[in-house]
Amino acid sequence: MPGCLVLSGGDPVSEEFSASLAQALRAPKASVHRKVFPDGESYVRLPEDATGSSRVCVVKSLAPPQDKSLVELLLILDALKEKGVSRVEAIVPYLAYSRQDREFLANEAVSVRAVLRAIRHAGAESLYTVEIHKEESLSFFEGRAVSVSPYEAMAEAIEVPDGDTVVIAPDRGALGRAVRLARALGLPYDYLVKHRDRVTGEVFFEPKSLNVRGYNVIIVDDIISTGGTVAKASSILLSQGARSVTVVVAHALLVGDAWRKLVSAGVRRVYAANTVAPASGNPKIIDVAPAVASALGATA
Amino acid sequence: MPGCLVLSGGDPVSEEFSASLAQALRAPKASVHRKVFPDGESYVRLPEDATGSSRVCVVKSLAPPQDKSLVELLLILDALKEKGVSRVEAIVPYLAYSRQDREFLANEAVSVRAVLRAIRHAGAESLYTVEIHKEESLSFFEGRAVSVSPYEAMAEAIEVPDGDTVVIAPDRGALGRAVRLARALGLPYDYLVKHRDRVTGEVFFEPKSLNVRGYNVIIVDDIISTGGTVAKASSILLSQGARSVTVVVAHALLVGDAWRKLVSAGVRRVYAANTVAPASGNPKIIDVAPAVASALGATA
Repeated sequence: MPGCLVLSGGDPVSEEFSASLAQALRAPKASVHRKVFPDGESYVRLPEDATGSSRVCVVKSLAPPQDKSLVELLLILDALKEKGVSRVEAIVPYLAYSRQDREFLANEAVSVRAVLRAIRHAGAESLYTVEIHKEESLSFFEGRAVSVSPYEAMAEAIEVPDGDTVVIAPDRGALGRAVRLARALGLPYDYLVKHRDRVTGEVFFEPKSLNVRGYNVIIVDDIISTGGTVAKASSILLSQGARSVTVVVAHALLVGDAWRKLVSAGVRRVYAANTVAPASGNPKIIDVAPAVASALGATA
Repeated sequence: MPGCLVLSGGDPVSEEFSASLAQALRAPKASVHRKVFPDGESYVRLPEDATGSSRVCVVKSLAPPQDKSLVELLLILDALKEKGVSRVEAIVPYLAYSRQDREFLANEAVSVRAVLRAIRHAGAESLYTVEIHKEESLSFFEGRAVSVSPYEAMAEAIEVPDGDTVVIAPDRGALGRAVRLARALGLPYDYLVKHRDRVTGEVFFEPKSLNVRGYNVIIVDDIISTGGTVAKASSILLSQGARSVTVVVAHALLVGDAWRKLVSAGVRRVYAANTVAPASGNPKIIDVAPAVASALGATA
């Protein structure tokens, strides 16, 4: 990607991600100067390197505080546009608001649509993110939009437990993620389905095809927010005889008592990508910036 | 304004403002349903009334938390656009980020430009705000944009002290505000200027033309954030013999220890418009929604 300056949005997550991205791209890196005024407003100033570039890759995770991160990204993009930078790519390791991707109830705001449109209109020619909740949402961005899979890169850093191991998605929606990770690890995969006992009427979950008794399980999902989904899946699988549960997740927000929930549910280890800063706990963080660099290089 | 539905953004400030606005316009009012998820993302759902309207006036103050307020406004506007509402006006009683209206240092983001563009692109045909920091900033909004003066409405609710009274702006930039308030109150006005003593080199401030000795002073400004500017002006004027200091301000953010600063500086009373919820203290709040209603009516 010749002529691309990697411009960090200045917050800690974006700083680390962009350092790795610049290294993988063998591109120069600079950082936005940012601060927050006493009343809560953000302030952003571009480094001189950025204003003289013809192509800038802005790295800004929409990690919590999501709204502040988004507004700062819009300020940066608008400033670059005014400075006449002709090609601006937005690298958004974590795209907040991506779970509100349709009207689940009538007349709901489709948040990911509003966010992607705002980023586009502020001046981003293209957008790269990591593991968006639903790939289809990318069509709300009127330009090139790519969601990079982190699981292949993460597979290289994961210590697979000894013995029979299977990758399980906590629901049908996450099956594609299980497939990717399982293939990269050379393991079988499955997903949890809801059953109702015909006699008792009781609802229970179990893997669609596999019996997990004696298996190590790797649960995979795109995001852990409060940890409810993954903790529940872990409890179910352990109660069905799984030997151990490891979790692999792209975005480990881990808000509130999420970490405690996972530990209580018997999760042995959590692997997460470096797209957000977890609010609690101690997941093993895996650098996925090189995977984004590959995607950028492949489409440049 | 026939056919206009006043749609509250759902936060407490916007709720109160829109109730008064709807009453003044004799228009129906509805409210957005909003909530905040545990991870910090906002959620917005339009009421059914809004989706069936041909014209909607969205009321959303960008009061702190400013970034969350702005993102919620963008979600609302985007949802209304998708629902095919043909005319959407944004009523933004407090427009955050309006003080960063140019590059004070090279390569700074001009935040108010980015904010106004985002609001426009999200679907607002026109924008009404109260007392923007600089009127010229409105040109960043590519559509009708109006900043309503609150001082005439506030003048009606202010108890003017007995005795000689003068309206003072804390600097030249706020003089226009002093003129408006002074005219509405039938009082003289002036502003503080910086002097340097030719002998000692000491810097001091005093009114440009008036001697305030024995006068009651009304200090007027557009915004109080940390209170530094107004507290300093109050101390100066009292040290120069002013009998009392009253403060009139459009947007009383009053963050941190602002209120304590004002009290320590001898301010007797603070009047503020109902555009934000003060973070501290106890200013007298004056409803300026009817003034916005007049502006809306006049330009409808």
